[in-house]
Amino acid sequence: MATKRRTSRQKNPIARKNTANAAAPVKIALLGFGTVGSSVARVLSESKFAGIELTHIFNRNVERKRASDAARCVPASAVWTENFADILNSRAEIVVELTGGLDPTESWLRKCFAAGKSVVTANKQLIAYRGAALARLAAKHGMQLVHGAAVAGGVPVIAGMLQGLSGDQITRISGIVNGTCNYILSHMETGASYAAVLADAQGLGYAEADPSADVDGFDARAKLCILSRVAMHAELDPDAVATQTISTVEAVDFAYAKELNCTIRQVSRAQLDGRLVHARVAPMLVPMASPIAWSHGTQNMVVTSGKFGGDVVFSGHGAGGEPTAVAVVSDILAVAQRSVAVQLPVRRRQVTGEFLAPHYLRFVVDDKPGIVAGIAGALAKVGANIDSLLQHPGHPKHRLPFVITTEPCLTSTIERAVALMAKLDCMLERPLCLQILTIDDRTE
Amino acid sequence: MATKRRTSRQKNPIARKNTANAAAPVKIALLGFGTVGSSVARVLSESKFAGIELTHIFNRNVERKRASDAARCVPASAVWTENFADILNSRAEIVVELTGGLDPTESWLRKCFAAGKSVVTANKQLIAYRGAALARLAAKHGMQLVHGAAVAGGVPVIAGMLQGLSGDQITRISGIVNGTCNYILSHMETGASYAAVLADAQGLGYAEADPSADVDGFDARAKLCILSRVAMHAELDPDAVATQTISTVEAVDFAYAKELNCTIRQVSRAQLDGRLVHARVAPMLVPMASPIAWSHGTQNMVVTSGKFGGDVVFSGHGAGGEPTAVAVVSDILAVAQRSVAVQLPVRRRQVTGEFLAPHYLRFVVDDKPGIVAGIAGALAKVGANIDSLLQHPGHPKHRLPFVITTEPCLTSTIERAVALMAKLDCMLERPLCLQILTIDDRTE
Repeated sequence: MATKRRTSRQKNPIARKNTANAAAPVKIALLGFGTVGSSVARVLSESKFAGIELTHIFNRNVERKRASDAARCVPASAVWTENFADILNSRAEIVVELTGGLDPTESWLRKCFAAGKSVVTANKQLIAYRGAALARLAAKHGMQLVHGAAVAGGVPVIAGMLQGLSGDQITRISGIVNGTCNYILSHMETGASYAAVLADAQGLGYAEADPSADVDGFDARAKLCILSRVAMHAELDPDAVATQTISTVEAVDFAYAKELNCTIRQVSRAQLDGRLVHARVAPMLVPMASPIAWSHGTQNMVVTSGKFGGDVVFSGHGAGGEPTAVAVVSDILAVAQRSVAVQLPVRRRQVTGEFLAPHYLRFVVDDKPGIVAGIAGALAKVGANIDSLLQHPGHPKHRLPFVITTEPCLTSTIERAVALMAKLDCMLERPLCLQILTIDDRTE
Repeated sequence: MATKRRTSRQKNPIARKNTANAAAPVKIALLGFGTVGSSVARVLSESKFAGIELTHIFNRNVERKRASDAARCVPASAVWTENFADILNSRAEIVVELTGGLDPTESWLRKCFAAGKSVVTANKQLIAYRGAALARLAAKHGMQLVHGAAVAGGVPVIAGMLQGLSGDQITRISGIVNGTCNYILSHMETGASYAAVLADAQGLGYAEADPSADVDGFDARAKLCILSRVAMHAELDPDAVATQTISTVEAVDFAYAKELNCTIRQVSRAQLDGRLVHARVAPMLVPMASPIAWSHGTQNMVVTSGKFGGDVVFSGHGAGGEPTAVAVVSDILAVAQRSVAVQLPVRRRQVTGEFLAPHYLRFVVDDKPGIVAGIAGALAKVGANIDSLLQHPGHPKHRLPFVITTEPCLTSTIERAVALMAKLDCMLERPLCLQILTIDDRTE
């Protein structure tokens, strides 16, 4: 209370912790001093938030980090260490985990909670796989586990959903949560090949030397599971979420997509359906009128659909040191001020990859009579209807790409048709099958 | 704690208040049972949040409200009253204020805090004009004042900024925060007149019989001041923020704007500049590539620009009973769970309407020799440079609309030029002068 005498804060440690503005600062330890870690140190240093003090930095080969330019914004009084026990035995009240991975990170976090330290983390895999159990452990010790930076970096989608949408019943999420894939696909719009754009992205540091976690959807899948938990209170097994690589999308697909008033994006989507959640991470055709198509480059975008509030769009820079640091520092302030997010009960849900949607099928064939009959026969056999057939001129007859779109049908149905088509003699490669997002996925 | 015996909650009232899941529910009183109030009751009824109980409803002519269809979702046990003292003397812990206006609402809220009740409100005028003082009073009594619904209804921009962007330094906000103006202007894109679209909007209930608060910018101005406080920690005097009506925008302006790859929107913008804030609510030309141009119909959109995180876009349904109820119910859950938002120091800032921007000038003239020379002379006199001159065919000579755009110049400079031009004999009406948003206002 404003009228309380100043001396009272010494008597009541909670009063000090209750506000970051009190005289004794809340001590922060950083685990990991890479791109994000050094950005967190810089934001803390430049913004000079009252009541926050960076006291410890843990990293392997810590002397190399300590000698780097990035270390200049770290207070001279801070302890640099490569011994985790120093963090555990420190007086740091908030441990900021930016090392990534499941092991040994999970055991570190467990020890932090037991030692009376709250944790702020950007670790999407850890939160997707172990978040629920770790949150329970944190609560048991009266500590917090906060992970606003685990999805969409600087876009406050987790904070916004937790605090601003808790009053809705979110039944659907769709979004672009992997900046690498979005960079690649949005740059392929101009006609460049997957391989060329991937090489560019690797040169710019937007893609790893082994891009599999990004392009095959494993990174996005972890984020989709976190979003499902936060927005729909549905706990999913990340391994159960179907993924499809973007690496089989070719420049010609963008030309055909354009003719359908669409572009192609790696979309992560989940939809609550009673006790079941339909979930999928895959390249999909997105109508140009959908907000999902607005994102270019490394931007992230999440669209939630609520029973009462309708569609809400969040968009911005999903990755990079400074945007991610914004999310981390916001979480540090929240924990330092004891600002605990709204908690609603979370339930484990079964996952299915099944969606009812129109589909885009692109074939590369050695052009011979009877091809369309063969393809149409496969679709008829599974009961799927053709909506359109597109064939652009200018391709060689012996390696002809053309496209069929279908009316809405189930994922399993179209997959059976694709399996039948793949056996046709004329097929030079496995048909590419992409879901087409429909008008339902637009905000009005 | 999970292991605590059930009886402990009677002994510790805080434990009960700490979670909405405990057995004894947090009691809620509604002030106002109109569109939003009845939607709040419906959302609470349908979502059955554990630990929340609607116990009191206050309204004038309350028996009429009680007899309405909307009243069916209110628990039978709830007390309906038109006597505010009943609310004050009740055991309600959270008062939800949806009556609007400054008086007597402000005095009611002051009494609520003194009586140990927290307040959730959607009252933008009250929060814009009295928010800082009321927040101090609430804090003095250990109560909360929460207003997530005061700006952009169902779009969690306040919650997202408070919790997810507190770690950034936001230096600029621009957005569309008045659904009525956005409905009117986005429907004028197709060539309809202002008067016709306004009449439509009034018929649909999107505009008031007296539309002044919306179309003249007073509603948006209050919201811009709230956003400035939350995002930039800058307290502004709403009366000091310059506004410009949208009612002088005509169908022909959309045709010219299109030629400039723009559309026209009522934009609310504020920019931090040391101890000064540049702020303005006005119809502006918005590049089609800007996210601001994405909003159609009654949608709201807010773009924040941060030093570290760059541009973040929030968008969705800004008005209407149910989207606004989502924000209100989210705030109720937060207060019930004692989830207090991050607090950073707010400073009073002086406001200026001055921006450096290119401008769009549309003239309606009786076409005679020397007009362009007269206009160019006025611009030369103030030192503003012409960027382009547009004149579409098909208009009568005696009532000719044409357009000049300028290179970036100060608002006060262009206003001096407009005052000079308005005196020219040929001018049939005062020139329309609109700011043009530039590429800086785009998210990359």
